Amino acid sequence: MCNSLGKIFNVTSFGESHGRCVGIVITGCPAGLPVSEKDIQTELDKRKPGKNIASTRRAEEDKVDILSGIFKGHTTGAPICLVIWNQDVDSTSYEKTRALLRPGHADFTSFVKYGGFNDYRGGGRSSGRITAGFVMAGVIARKLLDTIGIEILAHTVEISGIRATAAGLAAIRKIDDNPLKCADTSATEKMLKALEKVRKEGDSLGGIVEGLALNVPAGLGGPVFDTLEGDLAKALFAIPAVKGVEFGAGFAVSKMKGSENNDPFIIKRGKIITETNNSGGILGGISNGMPMVVRVAIKPTPSISRKQQTVNIETMKEESLEVKGRHDVCIVPRAVPVVSAMIAVTLCDYALAAKLIPEVLK
Amino acid sequence: MCNSLGKIFNVTSFGESHGRCVGIVITGCPAGLPVSEKDIQTELDKRKPGKNIASTRRAEEDKVDILSGIFKGHTTGAPICLVIWNQDVDSTSYEKTRALLRPGHADFTSFVKYGGFNDYRGGGRSSGRITAGFVMAGVIARKLLDTIGIEILAHTVEISGIRATAAGLAAIRKIDDNPLKCADTSATEKMLKALEKVRKEGDSLGGIVEGLALNVPAGLGGPVFDTLEGDLAKALFAIPAVKGVEFGAGFAVSKMKGSENNDPFIIKRGKIITETNNSGGILGGISNGMPMVVRVAIKPTPSISRKQQTVNIETMKEESLEVKGRHDVCIVPRAVPVVSAMIAVTLCDYALAAKLIPEVLK
Amino acid sequence: MCNSLGKIFNVTSFGESHGRCVGIVITGCPAGLPVSEKDIQTELDKRKPGKNIASTRRAEEDKVDILSGIFKGHTTGAPICLVIWNQDVDSTSYEKTRALLRPGHADFTSFVKYGGFNDYRGGGRSSGRITAGFVMAGVIARKLLDTIGIEILAHTVEISGIRATAAGLAAIRKIDDNPLKCADTSATEKMLKALEKVRKEGDSLGGIVEGLALNVPAGLGGPVFDTLEGDLAKALFAIPAVKGVEFGAGFAVSKMKGSENNDPFIIKRGKIITETNNSGGILGGISNGMPMVVRVAIKPTPSISRKQQTVNIETMKEESLEVKGRHDVCIVPRAVPVVSAMIAVTLCDYALAAKLIPEVLK
Amino acid sequence: MCNSLGKIFNVTSFGESHGRCVGIVITGCPAGLPVSEKDIQTELDKRKPGKNIASTRRAEEDKVDILSGIFKGHTTGAPICLVIWNQDVDSTSYEKTRALLRPGHADFTSFVKYGGFNDYRGGGRSSGRITAGFVMAGVIARKLLDTIGIEILAHTVEISGIRATAAGLAAIRKIDDNPLKCADTSATEKMLKALEKVRKEGDSLGGIVEGLALNVPAGLGGPVFDTLEGDLAKALFAIPAVKGVEFGAGFAVSKMKGSENNDPFIIKRGKIITETNNSGGILGGISNGMPMVVRVAIKPTPSISRKQQTVNIETMKEESLEVKGRHDVCIVPRAVPVVSAMIAVTLCDYALAAKLIPEVLK
Repeated sequence: MCNSLGKIFNVTSFGESHGRCVGIVITGCPAGLPVSEKDIQTELDKRKPGKNIASTRRAEEDKVDILSGIFKGHTTGAPICLVIWNQDVDSTSYEKTRALLRPGHADFTSFVKYGGFNDYRGGGRSSGRITAGFVMAGVIARKLLDTIGIEILAHTVEISGIRATAAGLAAIRKIDDNPLKCADTSATEKMLKALEKVRKEGDSLGGIVEGLALNVPAGLGGPVFDTLEGDLAKALFAIPAVKGVEFGAGFAVSKMKGSENNDPFIIKRGKIITETNNSGGILGGISNGMPMVVRVAIKPTPSISRKQQTVNIETMKEESLEVKGRHDVCIVPRAVPVVSAMIAVTLCDYALAAKLIPEVLK
Repeated sequence: MCNSLGKIFNVTSFGESHGRCVGIVITGCPAGLPVSEKDIQTELDKRKPGKNIASTRRAEEDKVDILSGIFKGHTTGAPICLVIWNQDVDSTSYEKTRALLRPGHADFTSFVKYGGFNDYRGGGRSSGRITAGFVMAGVIARKLLDTIGIEILAHTVEISGIRATAAGLAAIRKIDDNPLKCADTSATEKMLKALEKVRKEGDSLGGIVEGLALNVPAGLGGPVFDTLEGDLAKALFAIPAVKGVEFGAGFAVSKMKGSENNDPFIIKRGKIITETNNSGGILGGISNGMPMVVRVAIKPTPSISRKQQTVNIETMKEESLEVKGRHDVCIVPRAVPVVSAMIAVTLCDYALAAKLIPEVLK
Repeated sequence: MCNSLGKIFNVTSFGESHGRCVGIVITGCPAGLPVSEKDIQTELDKRKPGKNIASTRRAEEDKVDILSGIFKGHTTGAPICLVIWNQDVDSTSYEKTRALLRPGHADFTSFVKYGGFNDYRGGGRSSGRITAGFVMAGVIARKLLDTIGIEILAHTVEISGIRATAAGLAAIRKIDDNPLKCADTSATEKMLKALEKVRKEGDSLGGIVEGLALNVPAGLGGPVFDTLEGDLAKALFAIPAVKGVEFGAGFAVSKMKGSENNDPFIIKRGKIITETNNSGGILGGISNGMPMVVRVAIKPTPSISRKQQTVNIETMKEESLEVKGRHDVCIVPRAVPVVSAMIAVTLCDYALAAKLIPEVLK
Repeated sequence: MCNSLGKIFNVTSFGESHGRCVGIVITGCPAGLPVSEKDIQTELDKRKPGKNIASTRRAEEDKVDILSGIFKGHTTGAPICLVIWNQDVDSTSYEKTRALLRPGHADFTSFVKYGGFNDYRGGGRSSGRITAGFVMAGVIARKLLDTIGIEILAHTVEISGIRATAAGLAAIRKIDDNPLKCADTSATEKMLKALEKVRKEGDSLGGIVEGLALNVPAGLGGPVFDTLEGDLAKALFAIPAVKGVEFGAGFAVSKMKGSENNDPFIIKRGKIITETNNSGGILGGISNGMPMVVRVAIKPTPSISRKQQTVNIETMKEESLEVKGRHDVCIVPRAVPVVSAMIAVTLCDYALAAKLIPEVLK
């Protein structure tokens, strides 16, 4: 019940951080979409730890392996199973400290839910590594959205309270050149300094990622339960560490008047648009043709080497814990391609439901 | 596809603001739960416009009518259909201005999606009135949760940037006595003044509602796609005007270090709890036994009597519009019982999935 | 979980035989379909007891009442709620004999499942009366299918072992003129005699209904789990009293050789068709463009006035029972429009999934 | 949309006959169930071609490979991904004749549905080989059902019109010793002779498999849409070549009177049971505690070496075709474990929904 998402473009996740592999099965993908391993690898590589201060040093190759659904370079309409095999797995440290509940992690809640049968190594099913599957599904989704001109972008807009200034689309399209996937180079400098400082303290930092969807036609989504905001939020909360999701003006609406927040309708080049975009491109749960704007709050990496108070679940005694191993000081930059992927997966499902993409692509 | 929510405790919404009725069908409710019309009416009445400055003056009685699923005062296990019949309907003004797209409303997006066939009167399916059905479903959900000791609360924590100070549970349990459903009486004074001022300007205000779930046992939810945060967010975004959802520390995590945000595990009365609750009671998508805390950003009522810029969709000309009629200056207090209802509906689904509630209650 | 059917064109059933009403909520219907109460009433009337030997004498008017989703004579894209109010309800006999489990009915299984809280009057949720909702949903589905030229037919092909000879489409299209909805008038004579005889004995008879779908384009359905046969069968087993479903040659395949059963492909008027139709229009779970043919076995009405052996569930003693009241000697003719309806509902869901019908009809 | 089955115990199929692998992802399996590769292999081997006249000679090893969800010999509660790698693949003949539509196969319908992008080699997604995944899922389902005492059996009851006499449970439990998985040894002799004759003619034969579920407690299932019959039928029609499904007396009800078909209730050892079992253990869509009995009609293998009339889809000309390669003269015996598997998967989903199996097994 917990591992599938989407009504038509449906993705099912499987695999564990330190098991055989991490994988995804995608059903509902139209036939005839050209897909190569390289397409998927390029995007997967964006999720890999960088060479900067923010990232872990786990040295996985993360090579995609296509198990089904693609034949002669095209999707067949059958389920697409994609996996990456786990290779650089060292579970020793997890075996030693497995009874010590890591604060901020799912160790305790998984233990309770699964009665201790869960694969605890590397966080198991709750590991950020699971999002490699999301990224692979996102590649297929983006290629489908590309056939109807929809473009998905995401970028880092805040780390440690340092806010990037509003950036143009041109800059956002180039964020893969930036070590923190941030379009504001001067904010990036400050963020890097904050990260360096916190790394030395054995601590970690959180931030905010913004996602954008451009050229989404008006009319996607619906009122009541399957709102565009609702399904996007659900997909985004699947990313471990996400604690908030807001659209357009977001939480700032609580400080605005209706006359400030309402986006006036105007006509531009014969088309109805809104003059401002406080709605974030969604009105009444339905896209209005303006850029979709969503922001996602990402908590500081819970794995820190500083000493923390915790409980040993076997002895039921309080103990202290220092989490060793390779960890990201800040997960935000690596979350950027995952945010894109989850937006793409959700919009692709809606675009298929709205019959914007045919059953067979030619 | 858009009108049902929940996997086991499933609710389907139907009806329009100015049609025959607003209704809900609830399936998956265990048999044997005592339910009376009065139970439902009491909660419905909390959603009714108040006698204060914040509210509309539409004078609906909003009497619940039980059409199925309840027999001899108990649920039967069959679908429960509940409706309220629309009576105080005056659609004249909507007929006159139907071609003028109201900014901040779903008029434009509904027109595009449904090709002009949608019932536009009073906002039709996108009206806040639809949430009366949510509240009715919430009553059933809360009664089920009550059998396992789970309590759901909600209260106004911000209007127009005026933040209520943190309140104790005792105060929050009494918010129905407060005109703005706010547990901080001194903040309430300031909010009422702000509302009075804005009402005179023909404008409106937004705010934030906080929801709480107490005594949720650890282990509800799961990793990956059906996270507790994801499904709660999806349910909460179904409430018209919601533009943001955050859990625990929420967007503030972006300014915190891991050592500040991680909640240390401790033992209290033989039970593992966390010392702080930045997680909002959810770790890795699974409840950890701490109080669940969620905040919801609600935009200012889009219907304002101030002149606004818009487009006439029939003539495709720009025009100005003043929205007449009875409108809430601030929807926040009336959203409070709806937020409770959506939390209850979601947790009830999870509690049934986790087999905490039996198929037959005795 | 038990009361909804369909992925895109979704129907949710509610109501009880002797409660307030029997109803259906239809979601996923495109906007812009002209629907009148008369359209629905005409089909509902076909399900009413006839004036012949086969039928009950319950004198319900069964007038459809449209509660939502239709505005200015067209579907709006919002959920369509349709009810018939129960009026001719006499539950006295059920109160008297409620503890006596009627053989062949759901009394025992419902009692166990719902712990005795189920509405037992008139069979409650398990009553054939619930299928009035199916028929109403079927009307909407058929009107949608009609826009793409698909025609659904059903007719009685066997009662009491008396098999009707194969009939032409012209005859099948006129079965509403036949008291048993059978296209073979000479078989009808024999069936009526058998019914008359059995009625006098206080007994009942079963039979077989055949359903047809014409002009279904090739390519609907799919391999693996959501096969056309699987979903049609699931929908047809929702009709109380159905105990078997077969397609094309059906159970006779067990007596055939591959060379007899395989339908040779030929070209006719530039189109690929099959020379025979043992597949019943479905190959590999996908429609092949030939007429779809399905047959449904319907058991004899379990309510018979002959003395039967049973158990009193309160005293846990064996007793005998004579079921009094108005009952159909044979439900087969009244099942005919229900079979059509379920085929229509299923194919409509598939046609929408295959994007054969647009989101807005103009 | 087409590749998943089940609401709680959910299985998603992937893979192709001549692709990399055939696989299944199972979600919703409780944690703590002991599962070994050997458990799965034992059942998979039953589906392998036998050494008798009925079977193909494709020499796949069909070794299960566990990719996720099992840790330290137990299920973890996470998705279980199981694959068998394709090895003995010779696609040459398929490349040569790919444009010739094989009668009785899904070549034509798949071509139309997927626009020619489908993997046609060995029947691709429509191959009987896909059912190896069903069998693997069935093993997990049966082990879960075993914890509550439910036993699933299946056996061949008819081939080529030769009907096996009714067999006792002891004989049915031993059918793996019989070359045709038939409990009647004298009927087996006749069936083998018929098979030998037809094999020489280059033709094939169909038959009937009966499935049984023992010790199913009363109360599983429900009225209206998710009936036990409906979901079992849907699952069984997922098996390629199934053209009919019937329960209990099945199609024979059309020749019975109510007094013959109704199963009288009696008390035996303090428990309510029925004296006969024409209902096949299901009344009103709900299990009644009697043995569940279902029969499945399986068409003759469509691949025959006799010359057949068909169409070349590239030239759109009529041609003749002789299907070469390794094919089963009769698929019925190999379908027996698949029928068991699909019954197990369906009942497991219902047992979990009814909370008969806990979330964690200890």
